[in-house]
Amino acid sequence: MPSNIVSSNIPDIVIGRLPIYLRALTRLAQEGQDVTSSHELGQRLGISSAQIRKDLSHFGGFGKQGTGYQIAYLIEQLKQVLKVNREWDVALVGAGDLGHAVANYRGFSDRGFRIVCVFDSDADKIGRQIGQHVIEPFDHLKATITERNIRVAMIAVPAQNAQGVADKLIDAGVRAILNYAPISLNVPSGVYVQYIDPVVHLQRMTYYLD
Amino acid sequence: MPSNIVSSNIPDIVIGRLPIYLRALTRLAQEGQDVTSSHELGQRLGISSAQIRKDLSHFGGFGKQGTGYQIAYLIEQLKQVLKVNREWDVALVGAGDLGHAVANYRGFSDRGFRIVCVFDSDADKIGRQIGQHVIEPFDHLKATITERNIRVAMIAVPAQNAQGVADKLIDAGVRAILNYAPISLNVPSGVYVQYIDPVVHLQRMTYYLD
Repeated sequence: MPSNIVSSNIPDIVIGRLPIYLRALTRLAQEGQDVTSSHELGQRLGISSAQIRKDLSHFGGFGKQGTGYQIAYLIEQLKQVLKVNREWDVALVGAGDLGHAVANYRGFSDRGFRIVCVFDSDADKIGRQIGQHVIEPFDHLKATITERNIRVAMIAVPAQNAQGVADKLIDAGVRAILNYAPISLNVPSGVYVQYIDPVVHLQRMTYYLD
Repeated sequence: MPSNIVSSNIPDIVIGRLPIYLRALTRLAQEGQDVTSSHELGQRLGISSAQIRKDLSHFGGFGKQGTGYQIAYLIEQLKQVLKVNREWDVALVGAGDLGHAVANYRGFSDRGFRIVCVFDSDADKIGRQIGQHVIEPFDHLKATITERNIRVAMIAVPAQNAQGVADKLIDAGVRAILNYAPISLNVPSGVYVQYIDPVVHLQRMTYYLD
């Protein structure tokens, strides 16, 4: 199916909502639904239907007035825009409690990502199994990431080590980092960082509590 | 200091950005800075300075044209708006790898939240220490949460158990749930749910990769 996606100059804030739409649409599809509307999506997500229509209009007209959106088609289009119609190899750094939880997380499959290597600096952990992987020494990081051409990594180390790990990852060629450590990272332009910060989510909810 | 905050009818999308501003401002303060500008904040966060000025204008004028924002004052105002100028007791359900990582997370302190109890259904875990807490049986959940008047909880259990746990938490009086399990929760109106979903963050970055 040819794509007529016009995806230049999309505001970052819109890009940030597309994975949310993709997740909601995938759930609708799993529930057996074929068609949805901006109204239904908006109800599910707490986003106005006008906002959803506007966001999706950046990519050409996915939906038609009155007939709604074809879910399977919209899912494929969003996957293509977000470049997750392929599977990205991901490096995980840190094999503590959090690293184990991330390595065993069931939410990656079919969503564009696959952990392919895990690193730790702790001699007691190296060589052990974590999920389906053998923990590699941190010294191997650059060689493994370069050789496998890995562009995406997750950092699950203590805060005081996170910047050093990020520097090494970037030196090895990583361009997108998901950081679980509670610290802001300094990265050069052209490298993208996102944070797993539970407090941001908690604070967003307490606003609404009495 | 009297507050003239006009915080009714703030769009949820704006509320969602306030914790991000609060985190960035706190970091600036830690770096020893007293004053900032919408331009500087925007540069740090990848959000336009116009958006930042507009967001903050919902709460009355925090900043003056040309003189910038007083960081300490803005932090206090944002904490008040988000209701984290107090400390919320938080219940954690699930004491596996992820539960351990969450219980030991260093990012909660001074940001409005304190884990006060941890529950698990696994007889081998009950009575053990996790962080500073003794793991309580899941059967105690309702009594403990009701007695302590806990309104905020985090779910770190396998996906297939998450909805059942959420139902029990809500029944006990919880009104804000941070869910780490890779599943959408159905909750009644008046209950708020946020998700820790690493894939949403990863997908937001792959858009920008070649």
